[in-house]
Amino acid sequence: MEPILFYDIPSHVRGCVWSPNTWKTRYSLNYKGLPYTTVWVEYPDIAPLSKKIGAAPTDKAPDGTPQYTLPAIYDPNTKTTVSDSAVIARYLDKTYPDKPTLIPPEADALHAAFNEAFRAALMPDLLQIMLPATHAQLRAKSDKYFRATRETRFGAKLEEFAPVGSEKRERHWKGIEQALDTFAQWLSAGGQEKLFFLGDRISYADMTVAGFLVWIKIVLGEDSKEWQDVLKWNDGRWARFMDAFTKYSAVDVGTDVEL
Amino acid sequence: MEPILFYDIPSHVRGCVWSPNTWKTRYSLNYKGLPYTTVWVEYPDIAPLSKKIGAAPTDKAPDGTPQYTLPAIYDPNTKTTVSDSAVIARYLDKTYPDKPTLIPPEADALHAAFNEAFRAALMPDLLQIMLPATHAQLRAKSDKYFRATRETRFGAKLEEFAPVGSEKRERHWKGIEQALDTFAQWLSAGGQEKLFFLGDRISYADMTVAGFLVWIKIVLGEDSKEWQDVLKWNDGRWARFMDAFTKYSAVDVGTDVEL
Repeated sequence: MEPILFYDIPSHVRGCVWSPNTWKTRYSLNYKGLPYTTVWVEYPDIAPLSKKIGAAPTDKAPDGTPQYTLPAIYDPNTKTTVSDSAVIARYLDKTYPDKPTLIPPEADALHAAFNEAFRAALMPDLLQIMLPATHAQLRAKSDKYFRATRETRFGAKLEEFAPVGSEKRERHWKGIEQALDTFAQWLSAGGQEKLFFLGDRISYADMTVAGFLVWIKIVLGEDSKEWQDVLKWNDGRWARFMDAFTKYSAVDVGTDVEL
Repeated sequence: MEPILFYDIPSHVRGCVWSPNTWKTRYSLNYKGLPYTTVWVEYPDIAPLSKKIGAAPTDKAPDGTPQYTLPAIYDPNTKTTVSDSAVIARYLDKTYPDKPTLIPPEADALHAAFNEAFRAALMPDLLQIMLPATHAQLRAKSDKYFRATRETRFGAKLEEFAPVGSEKRERHWKGIEQALDTFAQWLSAGGQEKLFFLGDRISYADMTVAGFLVWIKIVLGEDSKEWQDVLKWNDGRWARFMDAFTKYSAVDVGTDVEL
């Protein structure tokens, strides 16, 4: 088969891949063992690219304007463009049923519910810490766009979100710890501790968690106090969890998008 | 086997069983076809009963005081007391593995996540409408207790929650419609509309939804405009869904608790 084109967001360090939402698709492609090429797209190019390749908007602004986000893929084998990591996962399962399944059909409704619960538990605190840190990693072309959109959305300067050393930052970090506690509780709901959401095999729910954890690891750094905290929380559960993703973490060199 | 004792909350109409949380357990017992006897417990008796039978508290008040809730069961066959409808479901699956499964082990972590997402989407609006209506159905012994605890919790008189005909009530009702829309979206996440969360068989996630829908039906009444709305929403999906629960809806006469 021809390689799938996988649209991801670059940083100023080649190979330093950070976007949690595109990581979900990268894990999906790697887990299924499908050939693909990464195409790097700076923030201001996401909407023009999406329109060009026919990727559906994934959200709406409060005023109704369609919003385009990555990941998106173009699969030359079926001439299909798909956006939104969960929709991509379902497309890949349907199109390549002989490869390992990301979302077993009997678990798809629960996966959708999981996604809501996951976001509600983690996002409010995580974004406050991760958006400013991510901004520092972006190339010049994305820098201004990212700052303007995020500062408008949250009504504050990136520098005020969660300054290093502030009480605010500590509170948000505590919130992240509590969210991971909640996930650990879900994973133990059946009375014994599971490593993955479906038990002993990885599914898309795990890729969602891993995508957001790897964001912390990549952007704050492996040696950061924060990442070292994560590895210790819940008796080292997340260290064991992330170890299982090592073999699905390959990043190709890719090419820059041409519009 | 000896009948399980199932502790439920009565109303002033015998057989008018309303509590959404105890309905989850009633559906669980009926679905598994296990023999049981209902024991009716008025609100002020829930804590003394729970302590007497050794039921674990299911929550904590903001000041740390343990909170006891129903459902709880006592299974004389294993001499085990269990509280909390999800914990009861898991106990029944474990203890009676030859009966139909409520929470398949591979889906237990996702069921736990579902429960959070379900509550977050539905509860804020549903409680505003249903708590005052439920209060009107309680027997004298529970009446004051229910009013006092709920009014303290929400900081308003029950009569002010969502008065019939008010704009507030309409807003909350709209919120409930949106929550059911969300559940319908989850159920269609895989690309085709499923009736139940695991596809074509009922699981505990469905009993959660059904327990809260039957609350509306019983307390507001089958002929109410609200229940008729529910039956029409999402192309009649919830009417079909609730039809499937008819055969698991038996209510025995039971006995009043003796303390």
